[in-house]
Amino acid sequence: MTYIYGRNPVLEALEHRKNIQKIFVLYGTRGEKIRRIYKLARQQHIAITNANIARIRQFVGGAPHQGVVALMADVAIERFETLLTRLPHLPSPFCLLVLDRIQSPHNFGAIIRSAEVLGCQAIIYSMRDSVPVTDTVVKASAGAALHFPIFKAANLAHAIEELKRNRVWVYGASLHSQKLLWEMELNRNCAIVLGSEEKGIRPLLEKKCDELFRIPQVGKIQSLNVSVTAGIVLGEVVRQRSRQIR
Amino acid sequence: MTYIYGRNPVLEALEHRKNIQKIFVLYGTRGEKIRRIYKLARQQHIAITNANIARIRQFVGGAPHQGVVALMADVAIERFETLLTRLPHLPSPFCLLVLDRIQSPHNFGAIIRSAEVLGCQAIIYSMRDSVPVTDTVVKASAGAALHFPIFKAANLAHAIEELKRNRVWVYGASLHSQKLLWEMELNRNCAIVLGSEEKGIRPLLEKKCDELFRIPQVGKIQSLNVSVTAGIVLGEVVRQRSRQIR
Repeated sequence: MTYIYGRNPVLEALEHRKNIQKIFVLYGTRGEKIRRIYKLARQQHIAITNANIARIRQFVGGAPHQGVVALMADVAIERFETLLTRLPHLPSPFCLLVLDRIQSPHNFGAIIRSAEVLGCQAIIYSMRDSVPVTDTVVKASAGAALHFPIFKAANLAHAIEELKRNRVWVYGASLHSQKLLWEMELNRNCAIVLGSEEKGIRPLLEKKCDELFRIPQVGKIQSLNVSVTAGIVLGEVVRQRSRQIR
Repeated sequence: MTYIYGRNPVLEALEHRKNIQKIFVLYGTRGEKIRRIYKLARQQHIAITNANIARIRQFVGGAPHQGVVALMADVAIERFETLLTRLPHLPSPFCLLVLDRIQSPHNFGAIIRSAEVLGCQAIIYSMRDSVPVTDTVVKASAGAALHFPIFKAANLAHAIEELKRNRVWVYGASLHSQKLLWEMELNRNCAIVLGSEEKGIRPLLEKKCDELFRIPQVGKIQSLNVSVTAGIVLGEVVRQRSRQIR
């Protein structure tokens, strides 16, 4: 992970549209340049988070940060709109993963790895509520994050609508669903929405899905790890698409 | 993880059959008590590993270890022979996991968690070649390791033979197999053998299995994480056993 700090350097990186993942601004930091940073970040769909001084120092130590730090992506993350333009060129039937609020870099990385190995075509994540694609994510993905197509969306509800408009069938994992994963028809262009382990996918997103499914779970622990859920779902996609279906 | 060190304390723990997971003996350490430690450990199927001084100090720091350290299990791990006596009392069809040479405590823990959530009845692991059930394993299992039935086997090849003798069908995951996971008949008493990600299951164990299967994989990364493989396999067991099979 590379950090850029200081008002001018961050502004310059924004103006040159360098690959910024996220910007942290110290609480209470103001001024013309900060305003300009906010404006450019908004235009480029880059999330800005307010942070206290301890957080800022975690990134830059004692360096002169002037209240602003930008995290550069080691991985080129493209915007969801770019994926939309590529949909017609994907092999059909394709399968996409949509990740809502995945907070653990290990889980994010593990999902990217499984997605690559099991032939998923792309991952879409919410840049606002998810962990960014950090070094830890890359490592947990066994390097897959360095070349696997990952797209960030400013608004996942909107992204799901766009996918549906492009004739992609959208399935959501939800513990409340009556239907089971195996009842889903996955042998067509589809996107599968997965949420964080504790919270699941947001109700707003659940409503946008064409169908909801669950994986039946027993035992005293509440739920599967989301990276295992992703594996099971993608495994089922492979099963339905393979010729030797039982 | 609790450590016991010094010749008399370790000997005493062995004599009282305390819950020892593994013993480390400093290279070149000899003597009557060490000989007795080896003998008792062998009788109790506890693995002894030779270690250099740096390794020993990792466990006990500067404490007077006298060349021998025992790792106590936080989790009560029973012997495979105990599982055999319980097989007739398990709900049928049951499903067991056999883990060969799993080295990562995170993967071991993640597998225990999935096994519990997906209704697997027990895990059998090789105490000689696997990571022991450490704190890290317990944590990665989200606590499932504290109550999920885990059994250690002195010899996995022998354990597989015993399972087959008890009418358990044994399936092994192998990248070399022509058959796919979904061609396996999992709706019966079965055990599934999984190996480490790099090496897979040992050829000797592969030969002992009734059938081998693979999960088709694409992409530039060689293989799935073993905890994801375990999830996909156990998910398929649930699918085949659920009524709503597609």
